[in-house]
Amino acid sequence: MPASWTSGNQNGVDLHIDPSRRSATDLAAALRAAVRDGRLITGAALPSTRALGADLGIARGTVTAAYSQLAAEGYLVVRHGAPTRVADVQQLPQARLAPATHTSSGPTAGWTFTHNLLPGLPDVSAFPRDAWAASIRRALATAPHDTFGYPDRLGHPALRRALAAYLGRARGVLADPEHVVVGPGFTAMIALWARAVRSYGVTAVTVEDPFLPHLHRAVETAGIDVTGAPVDHDGVQVAAITTRGAVLTPAHQYPLGHTLAPTRRAALARRAAAHDMQILEDDYDGEFRFDRRPVGALQALAPDHITYGGTASKALAPGLRLAWMVVPQRLLPHIRDHAAAAGMPVPVIDQLALADILDTGAYDKQVRRMRGRYRARRDALVEAVAPLGYDPDGIAAGLHLLLPLGAGGEPAAAAAAKRHRLGIDLLGRHSITLPHPDGLLVGFGAPTDHAYPAALDALVAVLRAL
Amino acid sequence: MPASWTSGNQNGVDLHIDPSRRSATDLAAALRAAVRDGRLITGAALPSTRALGADLGIARGTVTAAYSQLAAEGYLVVRHGAPTRVADVQQLPQARLAPATHTSSGPTAGWTFTHNLLPGLPDVSAFPRDAWAASIRRALATAPHDTFGYPDRLGHPALRRALAAYLGRARGVLADPEHVVVGPGFTAMIALWARAVRSYGVTAVTVEDPFLPHLHRAVETAGIDVTGAPVDHDGVQVAAITTRGAVLTPAHQYPLGHTLAPTRRAALARRAAAHDMQILEDDYDGEFRFDRRPVGALQALAPDHITYGGTASKALAPGLRLAWMVVPQRLLPHIRDHAAAAGMPVPVIDQLALADILDTGAYDKQVRRMRGRYRARRDALVEAVAPLGYDPDGIAAGLHLLLPLGAGGEPAAAAAAKRHRLGIDLLGRHSITLPHPDGLLVGFGAPTDHAYPAALDALVAVLRAL
Repeated sequence: MPASWTSGNQNGVDLHIDPSRRSATDLAAALRAAVRDGRLITGAALPSTRALGADLGIARGTVTAAYSQLAAEGYLVVRHGAPTRVADVQQLPQARLAPATHTSSGPTAGWTFTHNLLPGLPDVSAFPRDAWAASIRRALATAPHDTFGYPDRLGHPALRRALAAYLGRARGVLADPEHVVVGPGFTAMIALWARAVRSYGVTAVTVEDPFLPHLHRAVETAGIDVTGAPVDHDGVQVAAITTRGAVLTPAHQYPLGHTLAPTRRAALARRAAAHDMQILEDDYDGEFRFDRRPVGALQALAPDHITYGGTASKALAPGLRLAWMVVPQRLLPHIRDHAAAAGMPVPVIDQLALADILDTGAYDKQVRRMRGRYRARRDALVEAVAPLGYDPDGIAAGLHLLLPLGAGGEPAAAAAAKRHRLGIDLLGRHSITLPHPDGLLVGFGAPTDHAYPAALDALVAVLRAL
Repeated sequence: MPASWTSGNQNGVDLHIDPSRRSATDLAAALRAAVRDGRLITGAALPSTRALGADLGIARGTVTAAYSQLAAEGYLVVRHGAPTRVADVQQLPQARLAPATHTSSGPTAGWTFTHNLLPGLPDVSAFPRDAWAASIRRALATAPHDTFGYPDRLGHPALRRALAAYLGRARGVLADPEHVVVGPGFTAMIALWARAVRSYGVTAVTVEDPFLPHLHRAVETAGIDVTGAPVDHDGVQVAAITTRGAVLTPAHQYPLGHTLAPTRRAALARRAAAHDMQILEDDYDGEFRFDRRPVGALQALAPDHITYGGTASKALAPGLRLAWMVVPQRLLPHIRDHAAAAGMPVPVIDQLALADILDTGAYDKQVRRMRGRYRARRDALVEAVAPLGYDPDGIAAGLHLLLPLGAGGEPAAAAAAKRHRLGIDLLGRHSITLPHPDGLLVGFGAPTDHAYPAALDALVAVLRAL
């Protein structure tokens, strides 16, 4: 590790600075990460602002701004007439020094990893901080005082209106603002939906098999029996759904990646009406379809029976804790009832900021930007594994894909992933009752752009080891 | 209603502008409210910036800034060389035009009111927008990227540290950051606590009788039996608590307003240890004691058995949806378990902003400022009702007091309050099983300073009618 930089370091590779990102915030983030990771150690001298600006092809003032920011945060020590140096970061609050490794209570419990290909995670380095800050600022500047009182339990009217407009336009949802409910993340929303349908009289719910394990528990906690229905290349087998309740991912089955076929969509809508079903459509990544325009929401086929659910976690960031549902009229009193018991937990300012970012079009812009980025990543992943004979299953969409493994491949893959410090998920743990062939679930959302190639290398190394 | 102002209007009374509040934001808020209330109608001409500045004793530039802000929001039409006029507000988004009346699903269900003396509400016009905006800005500028991923289920480490420091200093809580849990409002926290103690083995919980009705349900929803224990001038009768669980308000019993006596505190701590109890200490307004320094948290007497709970709803604003608990070591695994099922619902940026506002001392400053303001309001209330023979019960603290009524007084008071468009609460609906004498619960937190005298007048009119 170099104790100082030279301006001969033309591309900033040592610090993993992506020269396509040129703001002071981005540069500061890259330098902060380097200090936190130990790539820049205490006392290390940084290049002059002029030299680093020239290296990276950015304005000297941008570098100065980044250095000042980091000096204010305590990462750097700036002295007039002397090189800027890395501060003694042991004295910083511990949280700022969290290692750039990850642990998880889910698929990778018990191992620490450097390369993050866990599915379901977006690239949080792409969170549009400036747009969000501007929306927060506008919300704080213009909200009437009474906005800061106890909020409407189902969501602020401005956000419910903005979501209704957006979901109608982007996902074909039949959404009246009165039917929109805002909540803190999809897990909380599914738990609220489960309590509401339980009150409505639904005692058993079918989920797709395989499906996400932690979402069962949220349904079961409401006192509901959960069973699984098989999934094939046309999505869930609708004929196998015999309960009055269901939680489904029709646009992009999780985790297998198929789309529910048109005939099955129609059959499901008929069945829903005939049996007064209540279905939750989990549209967790509906905005990210790469090969064609996404099919519209299932909800529009049976809006009295289907609750549409979505989240800002993929398009913006999970840290925002913002999710929504569009609820059938007949379920709304039950939702209201249980939302009251739970307390309405979404901060009003964040709700107004989301409404603003939707209304101004900045949300669409971010989705378009990320759609291009994720498509490129998926292409790179498919290309990297093709020479090894892997052909991903599922449609070109979302933030993950499935690599089928040979029988018994999962334990070997887990061991290799641990060895290569790769965070990854396994199909096996998504089983409800049915056995499934072994498979690797590979997320391509989580890494930053500059960390992605190394993560792919680690994946290829793991696959080679099998 | 005047269609134009004259600069002879020396004190701005028509617009209820409080001349002690001199920022452009405050003036804009007052004018916005006047437009929303219909006090300023479409086409009404406003005084020149010079004239209004002179009227209110504030700088002309401040008035100009307020006019510009409102023009940007669509409330005003500014034309060079012509008077600034009120815009056609029918064209504004509906949410901005919500009437300045209130309805409630609680004590005043079914009646609309103008004067808000409901208990439990702070003055949201005093929410420190600028300080909060600055804290949000710092959080967005300095947070590492991974902050925006799925957050720690129990709260961001920086906030847990900041809360531990603050609660130790301000409330005498024995708080290790590892034991601090952050959540979206107190109702969600009590629901989480109830599920956790149910897993711990607690099947019955005692609450004070009287107590807040909507908090029972959150406990009962966890499958717990709730019973009441009598309250007298020394607080809850500890000998009457025979369950292993309890939810108590020792610092300021809600709604009666007494403090738990020292001997009872000690007895409760002994009983908690002897019977392995789990108690939730609801310190809902612990920061607002007016006559002396508040007694420290009960939690410090039995930190293995008492969970301390508090909220930012009173000191900052309910709209933030920020609350916290300090949890005993032995309860922590159960809390973690149930928090995982519920999803972690507090946005990370808000958590970092709260940490910042605590660490910078702006939170303390706001508490001191509001403590003085609420004390003055309580004094004014006591003074206003004294000539009618009313002597409030309970200690000088918090945001509400209790006015005992004669037998059968509540229905008459409710009818009179409805007639006088006064939002107020009744003691009767707080009964668990015991009968209680009739009483009026009067909150003095909710109105703005300029609306408070009229609200007191309405209260006096109601009392006179009895």
